[in-house]
Amino acid sequence: MDEPQVAITDADIEAAASRLMGRIVRTPMMSSTVLDSAVGARVYIKPECLQRTGSFKIRGATNAIARIPDGTRQRGVVACSSGNHAQGVAEAARVAGIPATIVMPHDAPAIKVERTKRSGAKVVSYHRENDDRVAIANGIAAETGSTFVSPYDDPGVMAGQGTVGLEIAEDLAALGVTPDRVMVPVSGGGLLSGIATAIKTRMPTAICQPVEPEGFDDTTRSLVSGQRETNTARTGSIADALMSQQPGELTFPVMARLAKPGVAVPDELIYRAMAFAFHELKLVTEPGGAIALAALLGGLVDVEGETVVVVLSGGNVDPATLIRALDA
Amino acid sequence: MDEPQVAITDADIEAAASRLMGRIVRTPMMSSTVLDSAVGARVYIKPECLQRTGSFKIRGATNAIARIPDGTRQRGVVACSSGNHAQGVAEAARVAGIPATIVMPHDAPAIKVERTKRSGAKVVSYHRENDDRVAIANGIAAETGSTFVSPYDDPGVMAGQGTVGLEIAEDLAALGVTPDRVMVPVSGGGLLSGIATAIKTRMPTAICQPVEPEGFDDTTRSLVSGQRETNTARTGSIADALMSQQPGELTFPVMARLAKPGVAVPDELIYRAMAFAFHELKLVTEPGGAIALAALLGGLVDVEGETVVVVLSGGNVDPATLIRALDA
Repeated sequence: MDEPQVAITDADIEAAASRLMGRIVRTPMMSSTVLDSAVGARVYIKPECLQRTGSFKIRGATNAIARIPDGTRQRGVVACSSGNHAQGVAEAARVAGIPATIVMPHDAPAIKVERTKRSGAKVVSYHRENDDRVAIANGIAAETGSTFVSPYDDPGVMAGQGTVGLEIAEDLAALGVTPDRVMVPVSGGGLLSGIATAIKTRMPTAICQPVEPEGFDDTTRSLVSGQRETNTARTGSIADALMSQQPGELTFPVMARLAKPGVAVPDELIYRAMAFAFHELKLVTEPGGAIALAALLGGLVDVEGETVVVVLSGGNVDPATLIRALDA
Repeated sequence: MDEPQVAITDADIEAAASRLMGRIVRTPMMSSTVLDSAVGARVYIKPECLQRTGSFKIRGATNAIARIPDGTRQRGVVACSSGNHAQGVAEAARVAGIPATIVMPHDAPAIKVERTKRSGAKVVSYHRENDDRVAIANGIAAETGSTFVSPYDDPGVMAGQGTVGLEIAEDLAALGVTPDRVMVPVSGGGLLSGIATAIKTRMPTAICQPVEPEGFDDTTRSLVSGQRETNTARTGSIADALMSQQPGELTFPVMARLAKPGVAVPDELIYRAMAFAFHELKLVTEPGGAIALAALLGGLVDVEGETVVVVLSGGNVDPATLIRALDA
């Protein structure tokens, strides 16, 4: 049997980093003595909640849009997303001066819908239970001649998200540090496949570990079985950003080669991590954004004595959800 | 008339920076296209809420403790503070392995009291209306042989806080940017006197501007009159960290030479700035920490077309206060 074709290489990520320079925030590497003591490890935090649009998604969106051929690009883009990819595509399209249509679930956090519209995108609503969002998006693309930008199954998106991993590797190398483990929130796998490509090229001994919500642990199960497994539920996690149905067609072969083992996290630990980020790191995180920190703080992985990187992937949280976390 | 003696020079700040290296966070310089658009200026944010202990205060405390002579240092330190200096001194003392006693107002935010105790300090309570906190602290110092660490009127503290300004100047110089204005929250003036010393040495054209709560604008009035003015109120601002009675004896001559004009900010604008920091910057700020951002967002200063630095000095906020800001 042939090796599955690899959608991206490290060179694609370096090319993406050049395209993104000056258009995105090079988020800092943070650490916290309180966190280190709490988990018995040396922890570095990559706070993508501080990124433009409040999540890493603008990296992939900007890179993908830059790769659309001239002429076609002017017809615009269409995307489907529960919110962070929506905002990333909408804002990247605004900066590129092209129209964007975003297909969003009707129960997406209000803040994410509002911000998507603020960037000038048209928002089309769908129901998670009944509608096929990809079919809706493809219909719009066919009708308008616009380009569909997948939230994860797109080499341009994957390479753009991979710049998170490139920055982690560069910053740790500058500190003379090699991580034992890099913990990454996973839904469709765009972020992890990109990060793992960059990290494994530079620091091959590091474990790149997907972290998912309980009940949406398709990637964790897929990495065990060796094939793309599907979640039965469509709703039910507080981590609204991490409820994709299965790993991506392009992202899974990359993750299967470079990432494991997966960790599944219950909502209760996610709330605790959001409260920790609030009180101890002074960072606003959304549930999906805090899930890797939740796995770490919840003791779901034995990290004693390790050097660990935790990606906080986003901060677009409704106040009511954060307040619930602070009360938990 | 003689020039008033200057408590610190830029060399003191450089020496402080060497002492602090590896003991504090070199906080990043952030920016936000949303903020830039909102105020019509190019804004750089110095988020000291991301600092150890949640505010810049650990810089001055660490530097001041390092300067206490050996032998004396072992007898410990005593400080009075509504909270951030308390936490800074308590944690700096813990790291230095010496005892600390902190005199705190009975209405200090619970979170600040709790964290001060967490660092191992003994907390002594007083009433803002009736008690003289400095007299209480001096009594403890006399009794125990410990050293009083002023929240601002101490050259070691001032130089330590000045490292914020040194980092701002270095980071902007690396970007090839000269700021028109640096906006700094002010209570006793330790932070501003330090920052202004570092900034004016390197970027003499920059305006270094104190920002204070309405009703506690003693520094603003003192800079106009040329002498240290006193506030009549002792309580009444949401900015619990910024309610000192008058500018410091050592800090005022420095501010009078290097900083002006002052700005006074009503609570309502502070709440709005905290909400903005939450939603747009994904940063947790406390009222006093957000006050310079509040002056900027509230349009209290004409910054059209300028390059502006805003210091977010702290993030130790009780959830109830942040929730109130998010509802405002």
